[in-house]
Amino acid sequence: MIYVSRKEHFNAAHKLYNPNWSEEKNKEVFGPCANSNWHGHNFELIVTVKGAPDPDTGFVIDLKKLSKLIREKVIEKLDHKNLNLDVDFMFGKMASTETIAMEVWKILDPEIKAIAPNAKLHCLKIYETPRNYVEYYGE
Amino acid sequence: MIYVSRKEHFNAAHKLYNPNWSEEKNKEVFGPCANSNWHGHNFELIVTVKGAPDPDTGFVIDLKKLSKLIREKVIEKLDHKNLNLDVDFMFGKMASTETIAMEVWKILDPEIKAIAPNAKLHCLKIYETPRNYVEYYGE
Amino acid sequence: MIYVSRKEHFNAAHKLYNPNWSEEKNKEVFGPCANSNWHGHNFELIVTVKGAPDPDTGFVIDLKKLSKLIREKVIEKLDHKNLNLDVDFMFGKMASTETIAMEVWKILDPEIKAIAPNAKLHCLKIYETPRNYVEYYGE
Amino acid sequence: MIYVSRKEHFNAAHKLYNPNWSEEKNKEVFGPCANSNWHGHNFELIVTVKGAPDPDTGFVIDLKKLSKLIREKVIEKLDHKNLNLDVDFMFGKMASTETIAMEVWKILDPEIKAIAPNAKLHCLKIYETPRNYVEYYGE
Amino acid sequence: MIYVSRKEHFNAAHKLYNPNWSEEKNKEVFGPCANSNWHGHNFELIVTVKGAPDPDTGFVIDLKKLSKLIREKVIEKLDHKNLNLDVDFMFGKMASTETIAMEVWKILDPEIKAIAPNAKLHCLKIYETPRNYVEYYGE
Amino acid sequence: MIYVSRKEHFNAAHKLYNPNWSEEKNKEVFGPCANSNWHGHNFELIVTVKGAPDPDTGFVIDLKKLSKLIREKVIEKLDHKNLNLDVDFMFGKMASTETIAMEVWKILDPEIKAIAPNAKLHCLKIYETPRNYVEYYGE
Repeated sequence: MIYVSRKEHFNAAHKLYNPNWSEEKNKEVFGPCANSNWHGHNFELIVTVKGAPDPDTGFVIDLKKLSKLIREKVIEKLDHKNLNLDVDFMFGKMASTETIAMEVWKILDPEIKAIAPNAKLHCLKIYETPRNYVEYYGE
Repeated sequence: MIYVSRKEHFNAAHKLYNPNWSEEKNKEVFGPCANSNWHGHNFELIVTVKGAPDPDTGFVIDLKKLSKLIREKVIEKLDHKNLNLDVDFMFGKMASTETIAMEVWKILDPEIKAIAPNAKLHCLKIYETPRNYVEYYGE
Repeated sequence: MIYVSRKEHFNAAHKLYNPNWSEEKNKEVFGPCANSNWHGHNFELIVTVKGAPDPDTGFVIDLKKLSKLIREKVIEKLDHKNLNLDVDFMFGKMASTETIAMEVWKILDPEIKAIAPNAKLHCLKIYETPRNYVEYYGE
Repeated sequence: MIYVSRKEHFNAAHKLYNPNWSEEKNKEVFGPCANSNWHGHNFELIVTVKGAPDPDTGFVIDLKKLSKLIREKVIEKLDHKNLNLDVDFMFGKMASTETIAMEVWKILDPEIKAIAPNAKLHCLKIYETPRNYVEYYGE
Repeated sequence: MIYVSRKEHFNAAHKLYNPNWSEEKNKEVFGPCANSNWHGHNFELIVTVKGAPDPDTGFVIDLKKLSKLIREKVIEKLDHKNLNLDVDFMFGKMASTETIAMEVWKILDPEIKAIAPNAKLHCLKIYETPRNYVEYYGE
Repeated sequence: MIYVSRKEHFNAAHKLYNPNWSEEKNKEVFGPCANSNWHGHNFELIVTVKGAPDPDTGFVIDLKKLSKLIREKVIEKLDHKNLNLDVDFMFGKMASTETIAMEVWKILDPEIKAIAPNAKLHCLKIYETPRNYVEYYGE
């Protein structure tokens, strides 16, 4: 079993606010992250896939194909977008990095199975800033 | 003459659009950067000051004081903000990194003179992404 | 289950020496790290906490609170200090990065439980240099 | 149990091609990586060893010794070399990063046992580029 | 005057050898860099352009256009290639990073004038490794 | 004219204090940097040399030789040392990064002339932390 990772990035705006809370409560809990006019980040998304290398290619998964898949299915929806307003799979959810990780998993997990039947999505790691990041293993 | 630099960062939303142009022309020129619901970045701001070291301290400028100055006069206005809507010194200007550099210069140049009379602002370098950045030397 | 991480840093002096050994044996085992007048590093400390995101905030733990906690309980004791002479929780112990990780765990584990009852400290990762680092999972 | 890591690097040429396939099939599967005149990378190799710290040194393993071991047994064979033509342990195998990881494991695992009987090789992580990397845990 | 920079990368094989010298002299002067079966690097190329921002766009040069230009005119010729054997503008020249910088200048200088008449190529910076790099200002 | 750079590093302890001042004044001016038991950093030293490439080698200066020179003449004196107590060329001077840059210049400038008569030391850049650095051009 080998773990293979590919890093992509997207630049997006978002804000953190709970629509069931008052303006004051949102400010109190989320501080500057609740700024009503949004703020943004250069997010980094690292996708890790596990499997046995194919004897014919030496690859667990073709990283060019994995990169293309991530860009078409995920980055295109997130890059230069507003996470709260523009991204269908984030509607009605808190626009936290934790949520992005869980929603991106649902998209990529079946797609990776389709292009690499012997491999499996293992981990998503998302950097919101160089000092804040999350990891999700699908459960 | 020694050049001393301090790096700070801010996370902000912006979009690129020219209000004198049609929606179509903005899309054509700025592409995804014109997304009407904004996008954002983790900006890095590097401030370089030049001067002769003070014989009593060995410092061109006290970097703790320089850091405090940058945070109070610049970062507080930019961090977790919308560059088009929330930042007084950006009103009515294109929200490009070039503009930020020129406007931040106007703020920091006299302030640095005030706290370090023998030093002088030399350069502002702003990373919009790890692959795109600008430098400005005041003229 | 999501894993959320926050990176902080501290700059400290230390030396590696075993007081039960002769000067020669210390030099032989620890080489330049035993330099009697100390040396130092820019340490990076990454704290990883695991848990389920809170449905009201989208957060496993509020990273602003986690950052404040790490700074107040750990960084304040280590930053711009001598690990052998100035840090109460290191007295009488080898000043290796391994030891720092195990001692910081004892401090942070109960504090994290206190501010985020549904989350749990998962891992401490400490970079002594960009090329040498340790990880500790609490047992 | 503490996990201790050391990062080394090597610069090497390689190409990806399967000698059982036609030129066309190699081009189709491997694209520019099959360029017959080779291409190359600055590889980063991170070796992680696990164990309990020795009470006399505070170390799981002496990182100076681990670095020396990695350089003598692995880096010397890979650095400024052609992975397909110059490296004995890669002969007859696909020159993918996955293969390097599995072959380097076979070399380092017994050597680490020999210099640190209470420690054990835990993981090899190899960056082919800053955006593509593999991890291998020995099985 | 503002300086705007864009970073691109290419992965290539090369070797350093002077065809007028004996094998021994090449080995003596270039050491492992003369390995006859090649070695390689992940090169980073940073292109800096200077000019006054256009009042309509806020841009010195459109970085999307600059990126496209660099990729089409330079990266396509260098990426996944052998600098000694595959790159027309390097034929008959020493395959050092200094040479690449001077030859890439000749290609990009007129092209940048063509797409941004008020801007000018200012500097090329090429990282051969994270610790070795060159800069060239055109004369 | 090409500018060629080489990065090396050293890990050292230091403190900032002026022996002509009281303990209180030192604390007031230097804050935690005056900690009497020292603190330390992973310093990065980047040496930039300028000149015309030698037609026989393609090199401004052989970076292997430059690296060896920096290590023997500078790094060996600074690495795993106390900048205030152990380093002859720092005795009686403020242990600031500015001072290190000016003193290292005096050492390297004639040595570089000796190994590369057509090249010249152009700049020394020293990172004290990833966010604080100085540059010195020899005057």
